[in-house]
Amino acid sequence: MSKADKRDKFLSVFPKLVDELKSILSGYGMTEDAIQWYENSLNYNTPGGKLNRGLSVVDTYAILKGKDSYAELSEEEYFKLAMLGWCIELLQAYFLVADDMMDKSITRRGQPCWYRVAEVGEIAINDAFMLEGAIYCLLKNHFKQEKYYVDLLELFHDVTFQTELGQLLDLITAPEERVDLSKFSLERHSFIVRFKTAYYSFYLPVALAMYAAGINDERDLKQARDVLIPLGEYFQIQDDFLDCFGKPEDIGKIGTDIQDNKCSWVVNTALKLCSTEQRQVLDTNYGKKDSECEAKCKQVFSELKIDAIYHDYEEKTAHDLRNLIQSTDESRGFKGQVLSAFLDKVYKRQK
Amino acid sequence: MSKADKRDKFLSVFPKLVDELKSILSGYGMTEDAIQWYENSLNYNTPGGKLNRGLSVVDTYAILKGKDSYAELSEEEYFKLAMLGWCIELLQAYFLVADDMMDKSITRRGQPCWYRVAEVGEIAINDAFMLEGAIYCLLKNHFKQEKYYVDLLELFHDVTFQTELGQLLDLITAPEERVDLSKFSLERHSFIVRFKTAYYSFYLPVALAMYAAGINDERDLKQARDVLIPLGEYFQIQDDFLDCFGKPEDIGKIGTDIQDNKCSWVVNTALKLCSTEQRQVLDTNYGKKDSECEAKCKQVFSELKIDAIYHDYEEKTAHDLRNLIQSTDESRGFKGQVLSAFLDKVYKRQK
Repeated sequence: MSKADKRDKFLSVFPKLVDELKSILSGYGMTEDAIQWYENSLNYNTPGGKLNRGLSVVDTYAILKGKDSYAELSEEEYFKLAMLGWCIELLQAYFLVADDMMDKSITRRGQPCWYRVAEVGEIAINDAFMLEGAIYCLLKNHFKQEKYYVDLLELFHDVTFQTELGQLLDLITAPEERVDLSKFSLERHSFIVRFKTAYYSFYLPVALAMYAAGINDERDLKQARDVLIPLGEYFQIQDDFLDCFGKPEDIGKIGTDIQDNKCSWVVNTALKLCSTEQRQVLDTNYGKKDSECEAKCKQVFSELKIDAIYHDYEEKTAHDLRNLIQSTDESRGFKGQVLSAFLDKVYKRQK
Repeated sequence: MSKADKRDKFLSVFPKLVDELKSILSGYGMTEDAIQWYENSLNYNTPGGKLNRGLSVVDTYAILKGKDSYAELSEEEYFKLAMLGWCIELLQAYFLVADDMMDKSITRRGQPCWYRVAEVGEIAINDAFMLEGAIYCLLKNHFKQEKYYVDLLELFHDVTFQTELGQLLDLITAPEERVDLSKFSLERHSFIVRFKTAYYSFYLPVALAMYAAGINDERDLKQARDVLIPLGEYFQIQDDFLDCFGKPEDIGKIGTDIQDNKCSWVVNTALKLCSTEQRQVLDTNYGKKDSECEAKCKQVFSELKIDAIYHDYEEKTAHDLRNLIQSTDESRGFKGQVLSAFLDKVYKRQK
């Protein structure tokens, strides 16, 4: 099945999930206007992204079960795994609706951020809560009878909390209005991206598929984490790198990390290596909404050869992870192939 | 034990809970500034209220276990029940931090709302998330080994979602800036207050104590709900009534529901009974930030004898609930006394 077909099949599950949530609200006797509001929020905020996280739940499960293609999964099996995939997409929707409010962002996925839609405004906070709430409604409806039900609940709780922790550290380290590069460091960057991104984007899909496939030994979950958390960090470092060094035509947007005072791998690496003079340039120009200031920062990055450092980092990381994956203990049914599939998607991507 | 002593004992558990959450963050390797931030948020937002919800978990458990006083509970038993009580207070904190942002409130419990504290601002959204997240950290630490662990998780999920649903309906029915009384009705008011207030404030404390006491038959949970949800509605109607008719020296604040376009029991009752002329007065004057407009609304309420209608409602409701409580089936260990204790606290309160 082509990637586009997989995506279409996955998307075809979404309306069923919306109907299911609507009927929970109807069951409570909720009024039509509120049901309509929730439906709009679900549709506006959930399915518009690349859906990589959700799709990878199904892909990982298929690998663990030794299925060569989706066609070998029963309809019911596919549906349940897709439901878990959509739960990650709902978690992501919950984070993004809130993040956009906290970052005062304007657009998301080519449309206005939800809180900027007429009539929504601050109600978006409650809508974010209800996107998260949908996860536990769906898990209860579809997984309550499974032995691993409690594992799923705890996994979502833990990963949600970890992501919020990462978000907190990011918010207090790099507030948009008050630039203070002395708070930045590569160690802090590593913590932020592992917590804010790697757990929910890389570890969560694999762990969900593992529970569903009955592979739940803590040693196996650790094997997954030991690769996926550094891989998630590498993914985010790549993102930071592309924001600054990628071509707009490749990455599909114009990078704004420098002007937005982002605690990016690029600036943190520069801060570690720069001279007193270069530090002065960064202190004066980083985080300013001004393209000349931005250019001065980029000049420092270029002098420090950040792009070469990035490429060395990328090669070393990919090499180390490949070795680690090779040594995967498959004796309990876990498979290194799950991890290499993720690495292959990240390594040398241009967008 | 006096009410004040019970409160002090309950409060003495809170610092332990904060330490426990701090050590979860330390365990993740979180930096000191972020741990400090979380501690500040927990302390600022959680313990400042009347703590009725949290205290009633312990009280209910003591009644169910046939203990005459707190002293008969073992230290460990008390601590676990208090922990469940604090989980409701954390849930409340999560809602209040967010509600204050959505309502653009200025103060809460005699101090500035959290989002209005210098340096906090929109970060309060993530702080609200982390107050909710604390619940599941604490439940995991203290109840994972209990047979009723999953029941606790589902109860918190369900009640959280129900509260958010009530909040949604309230927000779209009575947006502060756009007055449209045609959306109001007593039926809608009933739905809003049952979902937004009654589930988490009245049913949740009792249900938590019931699970902890091993009384978990769905018929008993239903007996609790059948009294506590109407009782919670009565409590909120009383709140609405006091906002308009209570003396500031009794209720400790000056009512603002009329000026704030609140979907209150008072205006909904008036809308049901008013003449075309009176309706015209309400349409023109309700929800306006103007004390003359407010006085005109109050004049209509007075003409319609809303206070007499309230007192009839109060007597009838208390009478019906007392009868319902009298018929409680105690054969499986549930006790009507749990419910009458709640009713006694609500009936004819003046503040």
